[in-house]
Amino acid sequence: MTTVPRIAVIGSGAIGSFYGGKLAYGGCDVHFLLRNGFDEIKRCGIRVRGKKENFHVTEVQGYKTSDTMGPCDLVLIALKATDNDALLTLIPPLLHRQTMLLTLQNGLGNEEFLAQHFGAERVIGGLCFICLHRVSPGLIEHFDYGHVVIGEFAGEAKSRTHDLAREFTDCEIVCRVADDLMQERWCKLVWNIPFNGLTIAAGGITTEDILRDPGLRSAALGLMNEVIEAAKNCGHTLPRDVALEQMQRTQTMGAYKPSTLLDFDAGRALEVEAIWGEALRRAQARGTPMPRLEQLYALLKSLNDHRE
Amino acid sequence: MTTVPRIAVIGSGAIGSFYGGKLAYGGCDVHFLLRNGFDEIKRCGIRVRGKKENFHVTEVQGYKTSDTMGPCDLVLIALKATDNDALLTLIPPLLHRQTMLLTLQNGLGNEEFLAQHFGAERVIGGLCFICLHRVSPGLIEHFDYGHVVIGEFAGEAKSRTHDLAREFTDCEIVCRVADDLMQERWCKLVWNIPFNGLTIAAGGITTEDILRDPGLRSAALGLMNEVIEAAKNCGHTLPRDVALEQMQRTQTMGAYKPSTLLDFDAGRALEVEAIWGEALRRAQARGTPMPRLEQLYALLKSLNDHRE
Repeated sequence: MTTVPRIAVIGSGAIGSFYGGKLAYGGCDVHFLLRNGFDEIKRCGIRVRGKKENFHVTEVQGYKTSDTMGPCDLVLIALKATDNDALLTLIPPLLHRQTMLLTLQNGLGNEEFLAQHFGAERVIGGLCFICLHRVSPGLIEHFDYGHVVIGEFAGEAKSRTHDLAREFTDCEIVCRVADDLMQERWCKLVWNIPFNGLTIAAGGITTEDILRDPGLRSAALGLMNEVIEAAKNCGHTLPRDVALEQMQRTQTMGAYKPSTLLDFDAGRALEVEAIWGEALRRAQARGTPMPRLEQLYALLKSLNDHRE
Repeated sequence: MTTVPRIAVIGSGAIGSFYGGKLAYGGCDVHFLLRNGFDEIKRCGIRVRGKKENFHVTEVQGYKTSDTMGPCDLVLIALKATDNDALLTLIPPLLHRQTMLLTLQNGLGNEEFLAQHFGAERVIGGLCFICLHRVSPGLIEHFDYGHVVIGEFAGEAKSRTHDLAREFTDCEIVCRVADDLMQERWCKLVWNIPFNGLTIAAGGITTEDILRDPGLRSAALGLMNEVIEAAKNCGHTLPRDVALEQMQRTQTMGAYKPSTLLDFDAGRALEVEAIWGEALRRAQARGTPMPRLEQLYALLKSLNDHRE
């Protein structure tokens, strides 16, 4: 590839390992920052196991610090949003004048954070629709899905966005370019806010448990409608049947535990602000009441804080 | 006393032991059904410890079954509402034609249950404002408060209600007669629904934690306002400043854990229907939306079910 010769991946969790690994497996020049699991990944590579995805990157270009990685053309950001402050020191050594920053993180506020510190013109947002689990450093289990939606943070898609999508597609990653990135983010939150939130707050249940319980199902739908209304008031009218379509898709997932629930069960920090808090604040700033989200956000924040 | 010579107490948890014990200590003829802890209570009596309440009933009239207790004039019902079905066999042996049933249980629906099975004219409701903890059978810790509000289920206060209140007062139980029992029940729910619910759903925190966290405090206030609106639509206009007054009272409680939270932590069943479910159903039947309660109820129900 000519437009994106040198790619850095920051964050070697499930998302970073999967997409970075798939790009490397597809022949891209990918450099991984491995602050954890360096020895293991240098020794065993990155392995992805699953019914639909199975590959092994045997030789991983890994680094213990970003200082030693050198400037790159594209930085894939796959850290937890709760670690964003670390980006302030991790990213600068990777930048040249035209380095693109593609955040694959969840929720709202990550593009704004990058734009504020590194310039809006660098920032591209990516939404990952995928069910993964990191078993150990470099060992990723793939359950389902995998497509990515990318879009420019500042304005409509450019030629570089389409080039990037083509690069992803060449490496067998299904990728679509969106003209309104924030509309896509809100659309994804229509699912993440209820299902990631309720599975945790209801005591570690699955998406199937929510659909089966009339009260929880109704609570999920109520949250979805709040998010749709909030998105509208923030200037992003979502597709008409988005709630129905997502409920039907959830039905096909079976007894699925969202990644945030697995994180929570494993004692890892929840992305409370990116997924729940920021959506609430943006809605409230526009005078949109979100009583269900307000309560769920307060509960999740407390659950997250009191566990540490 | 002449009007209530023979009193039965069903349920020897904190509430039954405290109020039954206090009546016995004050000289009433009280008979305790002790399905659990019979030997311990026969041996050691009922002891209440605390800064404001300290007494010891050394000789407890205890029974293993209600068959052996004989008919009584007043039955104090202090079972968990989740055990109400047991009352169908426990109560009949205690009844004569004029036996009064005084339920000291939480929430909504208990008077209706008793009325349906034993006749509305027998039923009196009692609300206990007290902070207690049962350490072991017969050993009760008293933290604060203790007053009781009683009222007729079917209509306004009668002379028997006032006689009962006098009997309580004679035994040093502060007791007030209410003309609108259901208004009092809704008033109490203005506190119980948010504080009992959120302390559990937020991961086992105290009432002080709720007041200190702006999000949880706002969630509590939102629930309070929903309950006030629901009560109004159910025909019970609550005192104007009920939410403010209860918030101020909560401020004085310190780091308090409601009894339902202690129950939950100890693995005991929550009175999900009596406290949260029934209020929601009554509001919904009158077309009052309660989005916050709907969500909280669904979460608590799931937390309760998935723990067993």
